[in-house]
Amino acid sequence: MIILGIDPGLAIVGWGVIEAHRGQFRPIACGDINTPAHTSVESRLEIIYSELNRIIGKYKPEEVAIEELFFTNNITTGITVAEARGVILLACKQNGLPIHEYTPPQVKQAVVGYGKAEKKQVIAMVTSLLRLESPPKPDDTADALAIALCHGQAAGSALRDYFNQ
Amino acid sequence: MIILGIDPGLAIVGWGVIEAHRGQFRPIACGDINTPAHTSVESRLEIIYSELNRIIGKYKPEEVAIEELFFTNNITTGITVAEARGVILLACKQNGLPIHEYTPPQVKQAVVGYGKAEKKQVIAMVTSLLRLESPPKPDDTADALAIALCHGQAAGSALRDYFNQ
Repeated sequence: MIILGIDPGLAIVGWGVIEAHRGQFRPIACGDINTPAHTSVESRLEIIYSELNRIIGKYKPEEVAIEELFFTNNITTGITVAEARGVILLACKQNGLPIHEYTPPQVKQAVVGYGKAEKKQVIAMVTSLLRLESPPKPDDTADALAIALCHGQAAGSALRDYFNQ
Repeated sequence: MIILGIDPGLAIVGWGVIEAHRGQFRPIACGDINTPAHTSVESRLEIIYSELNRIIGKYKPEEVAIEELFFTNNITTGITVAEARGVILLACKQNGLPIHEYTPPQVKQAVVGYGKAEKKQVIAMVTSLLRLESPPKPDDTADALAIALCHGQAAGSALRDYFNQ
Protein backbone atom coordinates (compact mmCIF):
# COMPACT_ATOMS: atom_id res chain seq x y z
CA MET A 1 0.00 0.00 0.00
CA ILE A 2 1.28 3.46 -0.93
CA ILE A 3 0.63 5.97 1.86
CA LEU A 4 0.91 9.76 1.72
CA GLY A 5 1.56 11.30 5.15
CA ILE A 6 0.86 15.00 5.60
CA ASP A 7 1.85 17.44 8.34
CA PRO A 8 -0.45 20.43 7.70
CA GLY A 9 0.54 24.08 7.95
CA LEU A 10 0.16 27.36 6.05
CA ALA A 11 3.88 28.27 5.77
CA ILE A 12 5.14 24.68 5.42
CA VAL A 13 3.25 21.49 4.58
CA GLY A 14 5.45 18.45 5.22
CA TRP A 15 4.73 15.42 3.04
CA GLY A 16 6.11 11.92 2.71
CA VAL A 17 5.18 8.94 0.56
CA ILE A 18 6.02 5.43 1.73
CA GLU A 19 5.20 1.91 0.67
CA ALA A 20 3.98 -0.40 3.45
CA HIS A 21 4.12 -4.10 2.69
CA ARG A 22 3.82 -6.89 5.26
CA GLY A 23 5.07 -4.72 8.12
CA GLN A 24 8.01 -3.44 6.08
CA PHE A 25 8.28 0.18 5.04
CA ARG A 26 10.08 1.68 2.08
CA PRO A 27 10.48 5.43 1.45
CA ILE A 28 9.34 6.62 -1.98
CA ALA A 29 9.60 10.41 -1.81
CA CYS A 30 9.28 13.24 0.67
CA GLY A 31 9.54 17.00 0.83
CA ASP A 32 7.80 20.15 1.94
CA ILE A 33 5.53 22.65 0.26
CA ASN A 34 6.74 26.11 1.18
CA THR A 35 4.53 29.14 0.70
CA PRO A 36 6.01 32.65 0.62
CA ALA A 37 5.53 34.83 3.70
CA HIS A 38 4.09 38.32 3.06
CA THR A 39 1.60 36.99 0.52
CA SER A 40 -2.12 36.63 1.12
CA VAL A 41 -3.53 33.58 2.86
CA GLU A 42 -5.57 32.77 -0.27
CA SER A 43 -2.44 32.82 -2.46
CA ARG A 44 -0.71 30.46 -0.07
CA LEU A 45 -3.74 28.15 0.00
CA GLU A 46 -3.74 28.09 -3.81
CA ILE A 47 -0.06 27.01 -3.84
CA ILE A 48 -0.75 24.24 -1.30
CA TYR A 49 -3.70 22.97 -3.32
CA SER A 50 -1.88 22.88 -6.65
CA GLU A 51 1.34 21.41 -5.23
CA LEU A 52 -0.55 18.72 -3.37
CA ASN A 53 -2.46 17.80 -6.52
CA ARG A 54 0.89 17.53 -8.33
CA ILE A 55 2.33 15.26 -5.61
CA ILE A 56 -0.76 13.02 -5.61
CA GLY A 57 -0.67 12.82 -9.41
CA LYS A 58 3.01 11.93 -9.42
CA TYR A 59 3.19 9.35 -6.61
CA LYS A 60 -0.37 7.98 -6.78
CA PRO A 61 -0.86 7.18 -3.08
CA GLU A 62 -3.72 4.84 -2.19
CA GLU A 63 -4.41 6.30 1.24
CA VAL A 64 -3.68 9.52 3.11
CA ALA A 65 -2.75 9.98 6.75
CA ILE A 66 -2.90 13.48 8.23
CA GLU A 67 -2.32 14.98 11.63
CA GLU A 68 -5.43 15.86 13.58
CA LEU A 69 -5.41 19.39 14.98
CA PHE A 70 -4.88 19.97 18.64
CA PHE A 71 -5.16 23.50 19.91
CA THR A 72 -3.45 24.16 23.14
CA ASN A 73 -1.14 27.05 22.35
CA ASN A 74 -1.56 29.67 19.69
CA ILE A 75 -5.13 30.03 18.44
CA THR A 76 -4.24 32.55 15.72
CA THR A 77 -1.69 30.18 14.19
CA GLY A 78 -4.23 27.42 14.69
CA ILE A 79 -6.78 29.20 12.47
CA THR A 80 -4.39 29.42 9.52
CA VAL A 81 -3.27 25.80 10.00
CA ALA A 82 -6.94 24.75 9.96
CA GLU A 83 -7.57 26.80 6.79
CA ALA A 84 -4.63 25.01 5.12
CA ARG A 85 -5.89 21.67 6.43
CA GLY A 86 -9.31 22.31 4.86
CA VAL A 87 -7.68 22.79 1.46
CA ILE A 88 -5.56 19.65 1.97
CA LEU A 89 -8.62 17.55 2.87
CA LEU A 90 -10.42 18.91 -0.21
CA ALA A 91 -7.56 17.97 -2.56
CA CYS A 92 -7.33 14.45 -1.09
CA LYS A 93 -11.10 13.94 -1.30
CA GLN A 94 -11.26 15.22 -4.90
CA ASN A 95 -8.57 12.65 -5.75
CA GLY A 96 -10.70 9.90 -4.21
CA LEU A 97 -8.22 9.10 -1.44
CA PRO A 98 -9.40 7.65 1.89
CA ILE A 99 -8.26 9.98 4.68
CA HIS A 100 -7.11 8.77 8.10
CA GLU A 101 -6.43 11.11 11.00
CA TYR A 102 -4.04 10.63 13.90
CA THR A 103 -3.25 12.79 16.90
CA PRO A 104 0.40 13.64 17.71
CA PRO A 105 0.41 11.21 20.71
CA GLN A 106 -0.89 8.40 18.46
CA VAL A 107 1.90 9.07 15.97
CA LYS A 108 4.55 9.10 18.72
CA GLN A 109 3.14 5.93 20.25
CA ALA A 110 3.19 4.14 16.88
CA VAL A 111 6.67 5.26 15.82
CA VAL A 112 8.59 5.46 19.11
CA GLY A 113 6.39 3.31 21.35
CA TYR A 114 5.78 6.19 23.75
CA GLY A 115 3.03 8.82 23.31
CA LYS A 116 5.03 11.59 24.92
CA ALA A 117 8.26 10.98 22.98
CA GLU A 118 10.36 14.00 22.06
CA LYS A 119 10.60 15.27 18.52
CA LYS A 120 14.22 14.12 18.13
CA GLN A 121 13.24 10.56 19.11
CA VAL A 122 10.51 10.59 16.46
CA ILE A 123 12.98 11.82 13.83
CA ALA A 124 15.54 9.17 14.82
CA MET A 125 12.96 6.38 14.55
CA VAL A 126 11.69 7.64 11.16
CA THR A 127 15.31 7.68 9.90
CA SER A 128 15.90 4.18 11.20
CA LEU A 129 12.59 2.56 10.12
CA LEU A 130 12.96 3.90 6.58
CA ARG A 131 16.75 3.24 6.49
CA LEU A 132 17.45 6.83 5.44
CA GLU A 133 21.05 8.04 5.16
CA SER A 134 20.25 11.16 7.16
CA PRO A 135 17.29 12.59 9.09
CA PRO A 136 14.65 14.16 6.79
CA LYS A 137 14.64 17.96 6.75
CA PRO A 138 12.78 20.09 7.70
CA ASP A 139 11.10 18.60 10.77
CA ASP A 140 7.72 18.96 9.02
CA THR A 141 8.85 16.40 6.44
CA ALA A 142 10.03 14.01 9.17
CA ASP A 143 6.66 14.47 10.91
CA ALA A 144 4.82 13.68 7.68
CA LEU A 145 6.81 10.45 7.27
CA ALA A 146 6.06 9.60 10.92
CA ILE A 147 2.32 10.05 10.26
CA ALA A 148 2.57 7.81 7.17
CA LEU A 149 4.42 5.17 9.23
CA CYS A 150 1.78 5.41 11.97
CA HIS A 151 -0.93 4.70 9.42
CA GLY A 152 1.13 1.90 7.88
CA GLN A 153 1.39 0.24 11.27
CA ALA A 154 -2.28 0.80 12.10
CA ALA A 155 -3.38 -0.54 8.72
CA GLY A 156 -0.95 -3.47 9.11
CA SER A 157 -2.34 -4.28 12.56
CA ALA A 158 -5.87 -4.22 11.25
CA LEU A 159 -4.80 -6.70 8.60
CA ARG A 160 -3.10 -8.90 11.19
CA ASP A 161 -6.26 -8.81 13.31
CA TYR A 162 -8.22 -9.87 10.26
CA PHE A 163 -5.99 -12.89 9.57
CA ASN A 164 -5.93 -13.86 13.24
CA GLN A 165 -9.70 -14.08 13.51
CA MET B 1 -20.03 46.61 -8.36
CA ILE B 2 -21.34 43.09 -7.74
CA ILE B 3 -20.35 41.84 -4.27
CA LEU B 4 -20.57 38.30 -2.90
CA GLY B 5 -20.80 38.24 0.91
CA ILE B 6 -20.00 34.99 2.69
CA ASP B 7 -20.64 33.83 6.24
CA PRO B 8 -18.37 30.76 6.58
CA GLY B 9 -19.25 27.52 8.33
CA LEU B 10 -19.01 23.76 7.83
CA ALA B 11 -22.71 22.89 8.33
CA ILE B 12 -24.07 26.09 6.73
CA VAL B 13 -22.35 28.66 4.53
CA GLY B 14 -24.52 31.76 4.16
CA TRP B 15 -24.10 33.70 0.91
CA GLY B 16 -25.57 36.81 -0.60
CA VAL B 17 -24.95 38.70 -3.84
CA ILE B 18 -25.73 42.40 -4.04
CA GLU B 19 -25.08 45.21 -6.47
CA ALA B 20 -23.64 48.38 -4.96
CA HIS B 21 -23.94 51.51 -7.09
CA ARG B 22 -23.43 55.09 -5.86
CA GLY B 23 -24.31 54.23 -2.28
CA GLN B 24 -27.42 52.31 -3.32
CA PHE B 25 -27.73 48.58 -2.82
CA ARG B 26 -29.78 46.08 -4.75
CA PRO B 27 -30.19 42.38 -3.82
CA ILE B 28 -29.40 39.94 -6.62
CA ALA B 29 -29.54 36.52 -4.96
CA CYS B 30 -28.93 34.87 -1.63
CA GLY B 31 -29.07 31.48 0.01
CA ASP B 32 -27.17 28.96 2.06
CA ILE B 33 -25.03 25.96 1.27
CA ASN B 34 -26.08 23.14 3.58
CA THR B 35 -23.87 20.13 4.09
CA PRO B 36 -25.26 16.91 5.54
CA ALA B 37 -24.42 16.08 9.15
CA HIS B 38 -22.99 12.59 9.77
CA THR B 39 -20.81 12.77 6.66
CA SER B 40 -17.05 13.26 6.68
CA VAL B 41 -15.53 16.72 6.95
CA GLU B 42 -13.84 16.21 3.57
CA SER B 43 -17.18 15.37 1.89
CA ARG B 44 -18.71 18.51 3.35
CA LEU B 45 -15.75 20.61 2.20
CA GLU B 46 -16.14 19.20 -1.31
CA ILE B 47 -19.81 20.24 -1.38
CA ILE B 48 -18.93 23.75 -0.19
CA TYR B 49 -16.22 24.08 -2.85
CA SER B 50 -18.38 22.91 -5.74
CA GLU B 51 -21.48 24.88 -4.69
CA LEU B 52 -19.45 28.04 -4.21
CA ASN B 53 -17.92 27.62 -7.67
CA ARG B 54 -21.42 27.24 -9.08
CA ILE B 55 -22.63 30.42 -7.32
CA ILE B 56 -19.60 32.41 -8.52
CA GLY B 57 -20.08 31.11 -12.08
CA LYS B 58 -23.78 32.02 -12.05
CA TYR B 59 -23.71 35.48 -10.45
CA LYS B 60 -20.22 36.60 -11.51
CA PRO B 61 -19.36 38.78 -8.50
CA GLU B 62 -16.46 41.22 -8.89
CA GLU B 63 -15.40 41.19 -5.25
CA VAL B 64 -15.87 38.97 -2.22
CA ALA B 65 -16.39 39.98 1.41
CA ILE B 66 -16.03 37.33 4.09
CA GLU B 67 -16.20 37.27 7.85
CA GLU B 68 -12.88 37.16 9.64
CA LEU B 69 -12.68 34.46 12.32
CA PHE B 70 -12.78 35.38 15.95
CA PHE B 71 -12.31 32.61 18.45
CA THR B 72 -13.67 33.28 21.84
CA ASN B 73 -15.99 30.38 22.47
CA ASN B 74 -15.79 26.92 21.02
CA ILE B 75 -12.37 26.01 19.65
CA THR B 76 -13.49 22.66 18.23
CA THR B 77 -16.25 24.30 16.19
CA GLY B 78 -13.70 26.97 15.29
CA ILE B 79 -11.39 24.41 13.70
CA THR B 80 -14.06 23.13 11.33
CA VAL B 81 -15.21 26.67 10.48
CA ALA B 82 -11.58 27.54 9.65
CA GLU B 83 -11.25 24.41 7.48
CA ALA B 84 -14.38 25.47 5.56
CA ARG B 85 -13.07 29.02 5.33
CA GLY B 86 -9.81 27.75 3.78
CA VAL B 87 -11.78 26.02 1.03
CA ILE B 88 -13.92 29.14 0.49
CA LEU B 89 -10.82 31.36 0.19
CA LEU B 90 -9.33 28.88 -2.29
CA ALA B 91 -12.42 28.89 -4.52
CA CYS B 92 -12.57 32.70 -4.52
CA LYS B 93 -8.86 33.01 -5.30
CA GLN B 94 -9.04 30.44 -8.11
CA ASN B 95 -11.86 32.52 -9.61
CA GLY B 96 -9.65 35.62 -9.51
CA LEU B 97 -11.84 37.48 -7.02
CA PRO B 98 -10.35 40.09 -4.66
CA ILE B 99 -11.14 39.06 -1.08
CA HIS B 100 -11.94 41.52 1.71
CA GLU B 101 -12.27 40.49 5.34
CA TYR B 102 -14.35 42.11 8.05
CA THR B 103 -14.78 41.32 11.72
CA PRO B 104 -18.30 40.93 13.18
CA PRO B 105 -18.05 44.33 14.98
CA GLN B 106 -17.04 46.02 11.70
CA VAL B 107 -20.07 44.50 9.97
CA LYS B 108 -22.42 45.59 12.77
CA GLN B 109 -20.91 49.09 12.80
CA ALA B 110 -21.37 49.42 9.03
CA VAL B 111 -24.90 48.05 8.86
CA VAL B 112 -26.46 49.18 12.15
CA GLY B 113 -24.07 51.98 13.11
CA TYR B 114 -23.17 50.25 16.38
CA GLY B 115 -20.42 47.60 16.69
CA LYS B 116 -22.18 45.71 19.46
CA ALA B 117 -25.60 45.60 17.80
CA GLU B 118 -27.73 42.51 18.36
CA LYS B 119 -28.33 39.96 15.62
CA LYS B 120 -32.00 40.96 15.22
CA GLN B 121 -30.99 44.58 14.63
CA VAL B 122 -28.55 43.48 11.91
CA ILE B 123 -31.26 41.39 10.25
CA ALA B 124 -33.77 44.27 10.40
CA MET B 125 -31.26 46.66 8.80
CA VAL B 126 -30.35 44.16 6.05
CA THR B 127 -34.07 43.71 5.29
CA SER B 128 -34.60 47.46 5.17
CA LEU B 129 -31.44 48.45 3.23
CA LEU B 130 -32.15 45.85 0.54
CA ARG B 131 -35.93 46.52 0.58
CA LEU B 132 -36.67 42.83 1.09
CA GLU B 133 -40.23 41.67 1.68
CA SER B 134 -39.20 39.54 4.64
CA PRO B 135 -36.01 38.91 6.66
CA PRO B 136 -33.62 36.53 4.89
CA LYS B 137 -33.53 33.01 6.33
CA PRO B 138 -31.52 31.38 7.84
CA ASP B 139 -29.56 33.91 9.90
CA ASP B 140 -26.38 32.83 8.07
CA THR B 141 -27.84 34.20 4.83
CA ALA B 142 -28.76 37.48 6.53
CA ASP B 143 -25.23 37.66 7.95
CA ALA B 144 -23.75 37.10 4.49
CA LEU B 145 -25.84 39.95 3.07
CA ALA B 146 -24.72 42.15 6.00
CA ILE B 147 -21.07 41.39 5.17
CA ALA B 148 -21.68 42.25 1.50
CA LEU B 149 -23.36 45.54 2.54
CA CYS B 150 -20.44 46.30 4.87
CA HIS B 151 -18.03 45.91 1.98
CA GLY B 152 -20.29 47.93 -0.32
CA GLN B 153 -20.23 50.79 2.15
CA ALA B 154 -16.47 50.52 2.74
CA ALA B 155 -15.75 50.40 -0.99
CA GLY B 156 -18.18 53.31 -1.56
CA SER B 157 -16.39 55.36 1.10
CA ALA B 158 -13.01 54.66 -0.46
CA LEU B 159 -14.39 55.87 -3.76
CA ARG B 160 -15.77 59.03 -2.17
CA ASP B 161 -12.38 59.68 -0.60
CA TYR B 162 -10.82 59.27 -4.00
CA PHE B 163 -13.11 61.80 -5.67
CA ASN B 164 -12.74 64.25 -2.79
CA GLN B 165 -8.95 64.41 -3.09
